[in-house]
Amino acid sequence: MQESAGAATGSLTIIGLGPGTPEWLTPAAQAALDAASDLVGYGPYLDRVPAREGRVKHATDNRVEIERATHALRLAAEGRQVAVVSGGDPGVFAMAAAVFEALEAGEPGWRAIPITVEPGITAMLAAAARAGAPLGGDFCAISLSDNLKPWEVVTARLEAALAADFVICLYNPISKARPWQLGAALELAARHREGRTPVLFARAVGRPDENLRVLALSEAVAAAGTADMATLVIIGASGTRLIARGKERPYVYTPRSVTKSPWATSQGRT
Amino acid sequence: MQESAGAATGSLTIIGLGPGTPEWLTPAAQAALDAASDLVGYGPYLDRVPAREGRVKHATDNRVEIERATHALRLAAEGRQVAVVSGGDPGVFAMAAAVFEALEAGEPGWRAIPITVEPGITAMLAAAARAGAPLGGDFCAISLSDNLKPWEVVTARLEAALAADFVICLYNPISKARPWQLGAALELAARHREGRTPVLFARAVGRPDENLRVLALSEAVAAAGTADMATLVIIGASGTRLIARGKERPYVYTPRSVTKSPWATSQGRT
Repeated sequence: MQESAGAATGSLTIIGLGPGTPEWLTPAAQAALDAASDLVGYGPYLDRVPAREGRVKHATDNRVEIERATHALRLAAEGRQVAVVSGGDPGVFAMAAAVFEALEAGEPGWRAIPITVEPGITAMLAAAARAGAPLGGDFCAISLSDNLKPWEVVTARLEAALAADFVICLYNPISKARPWQLGAALELAARHREGRTPVLFARAVGRPDENLRVLALSEAVAAAGTADMATLVIIGASGTRLIARGKERPYVYTPRSVTKSPWATSQGRT
Repeated sequence: MQESAGAATGSLTIIGLGPGTPEWLTPAAQAALDAASDLVGYGPYLDRVPAREGRVKHATDNRVEIERATHALRLAAEGRQVAVVSGGDPGVFAMAAAVFEALEAGEPGWRAIPITVEPGITAMLAAAARAGAPLGGDFCAISLSDNLKPWEVVTARLEAALAADFVICLYNPISKARPWQLGAALELAARHREGRTPVLFARAVGRPDENLRVLALSEAVAAAGTADMATLVIIGASGTRLIARGKERPYVYTPRSVTKSPWATSQGRT
């Protein structure tokens, strides 16, 4: 690296902690946490990392990602070994993009800081694993938050994904400040897909309060208010199926094969 | 579990090994490997798991996934502790869906076998981490293989994702039996997105022969033939950007914000 980052050689790693349990934290992510002198992140994620002599935690509110990213870059430029921690995977609706935004907008010397991204198990992979194999076909991931994009962009993407029969993973489905968006998204889905289409509400997967529910799309519309920010929602494609197994929750899976353009015979708009 | 699965209590775990390096293998996946009496999978994936006294490896060809899944279920029904191994995440264009297809089509007693899916770092997360944060916005994952779905389904999904400005991850982009599909997909992309749009060719991420290339979309069309089955391709959205850093490969990232419907001013069809 160049001298311009400062006399001391700092570094920045953006780490994915996975969904919650240490059993899903990769050895590479663990090693990066161990090597850090400073941890930067949203308080509840920092709480997952044990305190250690000589390692400083910089907790911030969840809604100031760009300030947090800038703070982390400044610390690294001063020569600290900085780890920015995210839940799940840092590149999926988490801190990695914010760090690169701050890098691009920040001091030119910051570009000499070695930056590493450590991937993690993102919520949709954990939720899918618990449910069976709902992501067995082509799929997409959409954040329902309209803090950073207009709602019409969200709906246009939902419409496109529904018409083309993708399995749809919804991140950030609902919050106190955004109470109606998930219901609206599911109503839109119900205009394209059959009422029996499986929908998964996967809450806090990998944590002690984990809770999975498999609903029919027609039920899910009415149940939207029972989701929260810790919930990952997966809307099945036309081929997504259930396998019953007595009193236990059915498996949800999407077969790998598509035999024809399913939307050619869709009952909804195309 | 019920008695119907056989007198002995077998089990089946579908394990994601991640992209290659053991540093990205989760502790849960490692524990599941350690607990298995029988490993079932495609030869090169099995080769990644060390041999151990008393643990049997059942290697199969890559193109007989449903037979492999049926074999694994039969072993579990006989009372074995079976692990089906996949690269990446087992739920993303890998073995999990095949196992549930085989389960649904198979003997009713198999439904009493305890089946667990252990998630892994899928290729697009590893590739994105190495490149920066290209998945910073909404994104989709499409398998370019037309072994299991008609090519017109692939192109319809590509068109939808391009029109709605998703970042697009292409799995199984090219093989000896499917030499032209990646070029066709990139040509389609070039009709919707600007020629300077960043495209990532990420080959064998996490393995010794790892190789990342950042191309402009206009270059990528001509370079399609340089990809192979170990390559994961990411096509940027309209907002995807590069951050130059001297002689090193530029970072690729997609800002979190979308300020307007980007396809409203797209030069391509909408």
